[in-house]
Amino acid sequence: MTQNVRWGILATGAIAKKFAEGLRDARGAELVAVGSRSQDKADAFGKQFNVPHCHGSYEALAADADVDAIYVATPHPQHKPAASLCLEGGKAVLVEKPFTVNAREARELVALARAKKRFCMEAMWTRFIPAIVRVRELVASGAIGEVRMVAADFGFRGGLNPEGRLFNPRLAGGGLLDVGVYCVSFASMILGTPVATTGAAHIGQTGVDEQAGMVLTYEGGKLAVLYTAVRTQTPVEASILGTDGRIRIHNPFFKASKLTITAGGKDETVEIPLRGNGYNYQAEHVGQCLRDGRTESDIMPLDETISIMETMDALRAQWKLRYPME
Amino acid sequence: MTQNVRWGILATGAIAKKFAEGLRDARGAELVAVGSRSQDKADAFGKQFNVPHCHGSYEALAADADVDAIYVATPHPQHKPAASLCLEGGKAVLVEKPFTVNAREARELVALARAKKRFCMEAMWTRFIPAIVRVRELVASGAIGEVRMVAADFGFRGGLNPEGRLFNPRLAGGGLLDVGVYCVSFASMILGTPVATTGAAHIGQTGVDEQAGMVLTYEGGKLAVLYTAVRTQTPVEASILGTDGRIRIHNPFFKASKLTITAGGKDETVEIPLRGNGYNYQAEHVGQCLRDGRTESDIMPLDETISIMETMDALRAQWKLRYPME
Repeated sequence: MTQNVRWGILATGAIAKKFAEGLRDARGAELVAVGSRSQDKADAFGKQFNVPHCHGSYEALAADADVDAIYVATPHPQHKPAASLCLEGGKAVLVEKPFTVNAREARELVALARAKKRFCMEAMWTRFIPAIVRVRELVASGAIGEVRMVAADFGFRGGLNPEGRLFNPRLAGGGLLDVGVYCVSFASMILGTPVATTGAAHIGQTGVDEQAGMVLTYEGGKLAVLYTAVRTQTPVEASILGTDGRIRIHNPFFKASKLTITAGGKDETVEIPLRGNGYNYQAEHVGQCLRDGRTESDIMPLDETISIMETMDALRAQWKLRYPME
Repeated sequence: MTQNVRWGILATGAIAKKFAEGLRDARGAELVAVGSRSQDKADAFGKQFNVPHCHGSYEALAADADVDAIYVATPHPQHKPAASLCLEGGKAVLVEKPFTVNAREARELVALARAKKRFCMEAMWTRFIPAIVRVRELVASGAIGEVRMVAADFGFRGGLNPEGRLFNPRLAGGGLLDVGVYCVSFASMILGTPVATTGAAHIGQTGVDEQAGMVLTYEGGKLAVLYTAVRTQTPVEASILGTDGRIRIHNPFFKASKLTITAGGKDETVEIPLRGNGYNYQAEHVGQCLRDGRTESDIMPLDETISIMETMDALRAQWKLRYPME
C-alpha cells in the first residue's frame, strides 16, 4: 500500500469533527467517506469536510469499497458493534477511546480483529504526539533513572445534563471512561499492567462517577496516583517520578507540548509544539502500520488496551458502578 | 501573661535547630532553655543558640521554673512520653508532627493535657504561615465555590539508611508519618475528617512505607488524592479544586509562598513571602493562645490532630504496617 490511506468516519459528533480536522494535517491520509444513521447528518458532515462518499447508514460505510480504514466515533456503547461491522466489512478500524465499555467487550472485539486479520487500535491519540514520543524516549534512555511513581489527573467541569453522554449511565457516562482513561492509559504506557488497584469515586445523582481518585500498584511497589472528574476542573498535568529525576508534562497533559525535565539538580523546560490539532499523528501511525502490513500497533497494542479496560473494570467494580447494558 | 513566652526545646536534632532559628524571628518569644539526654549535647546546642539554661535531662527541662512552653523535638516514638513529662511539669507543649505514633497515643496525650488544663498542640507549622492563612481565607470566602477535591504530594529521595529515623521501624519511620502527615493534615484542614480511606504503599526492605498513594473520601463525595515518599522526589504541590475555581499552592507547598488562584476564567498568581524560616509563625500562635488563656488552638485543634492520626492508622492498617512499639 503506497497510496494514501482512504479514511471513513463512522458517526458525526464532536470527536468525529476533531478527527476530520486532524486528517487535514495527516500525511498519507485522505478523508473519503462518512457514515451516519441519518443521511442528512452524513451530508452535512460531508459538506463541512468535503467528503465525497456520504452514507446514510453505518452498514453502507462499512461496505464502501473505496475505504481502507474507519474511525469509530460513536458514544462508548456503540464502539464494539460499530467496529465489528467495519471489521466484518474488511476495514481497518481505529476505535475512539475508551475502546469499549468493559474488558469483556474489548476481548471480543480484539478476537474478531485477530480472526479477520484486520488492523485494529484504540484511538489513544495522545500517545502519538511528539511530546509524548519524547517522554517515552526520555524514560527509556534512563534520563530519570528507574521510574517509581506516575501521577496524572484529568478533570473538567461539565454542565450536569442527565441525558448527555457524560452523565447518562445508558451511554456509559462518568469521568473514568471519558477522561480518566487518559490517566489510566498514561500510567499503563509507563508502568505496564497493575498488580492491584484501589480508589474511591463520587457517584452522582445520575448514577455515574462524577469524580474519582485511584491508586494503582505495580511490580516492585511502583505506584500510579490518578484522579479524574467531569464536575471538577483539575490541573490536567502528569508527572513521572524516577530515582534520578522527574518529568512534568504540563497542562493539558493529554495534548502535551511542554515538558519540564528535572535531573542532575536542574530543571529544563522544553516546548515540543504540535502540528495540526494532534489527532493527525495517530492517523499517520495507522497509515504506517497499514503500509507495513501490521494488524496491531506496537505503540498502543491491543493486549494493552484490554489491560486498561480490565483496570477500569476493577475500579468500577469497587465503586459498584455498573452500566445498564452490562 | 504579657511578657515573652519563655521557650524550652526538648531534644537537639535537626528539627530542634530549625525551631530555635524560627524563634529568633518570632515576636513575643524567647528561647531560655534546652534539654537533652546528654549534657554535652545540651551545652553545644545552648552555645549555638545562646540558651541560658542547658539541661542534661528531659526531666530537668520539664522542671525548669523559668520555662513557659516546651517544643518536643524528639523522634516520633518519644513524643508522647516527652510531652507527658512536660505537661506533668506544668508546661505548655508544642509537639513536633506527627503528634504521636498512632491515635491511641494521641488520645492519651490529649486526655492528659486536658486533665492538666495545659496548652497542647501538634506543631503543624505550615498551617500558620501567611500563604496558608490566605488559602483558608480564600476558601472560606467562596472564591472557588464549594471545594470538591484536594490534591497534595510530598516526597523526597532520602538516602536509604536502615538505622536512621526515616527508615527504621523502631523509630516509626516511613513516608506517611514523616511527610505524608503534611498531606493528610492539609486535606483535613480543608475537608475535615474522612468517612473512608484507601490507598497503597510500597513497604521497602526496612519494613516501612517508602512511597504511598492515598484516596480519602469525605461527606458528599468530596475526595482527597495524596501521595508521599521518602525514596522518590515528587512535585511537592497542592491543589484545592472547587466548583467555581481552584487554588494551586506551588512547590514547596508545606512552606508555601506562591499561590495561583484560578477563578472566573483567569489565573492570578500571588507571592506571599515568609518572614523567617516559617517556624516562627506557629511559635507566635502558641504565644497568642497562652496570652488568651487558651489550652487548645483553634487553627490546629487537638480533636483534629486525633482525627489525622486515625486516618494514618487506617492507612497503615491497610498496608499492614505496624511498628514494633505498637
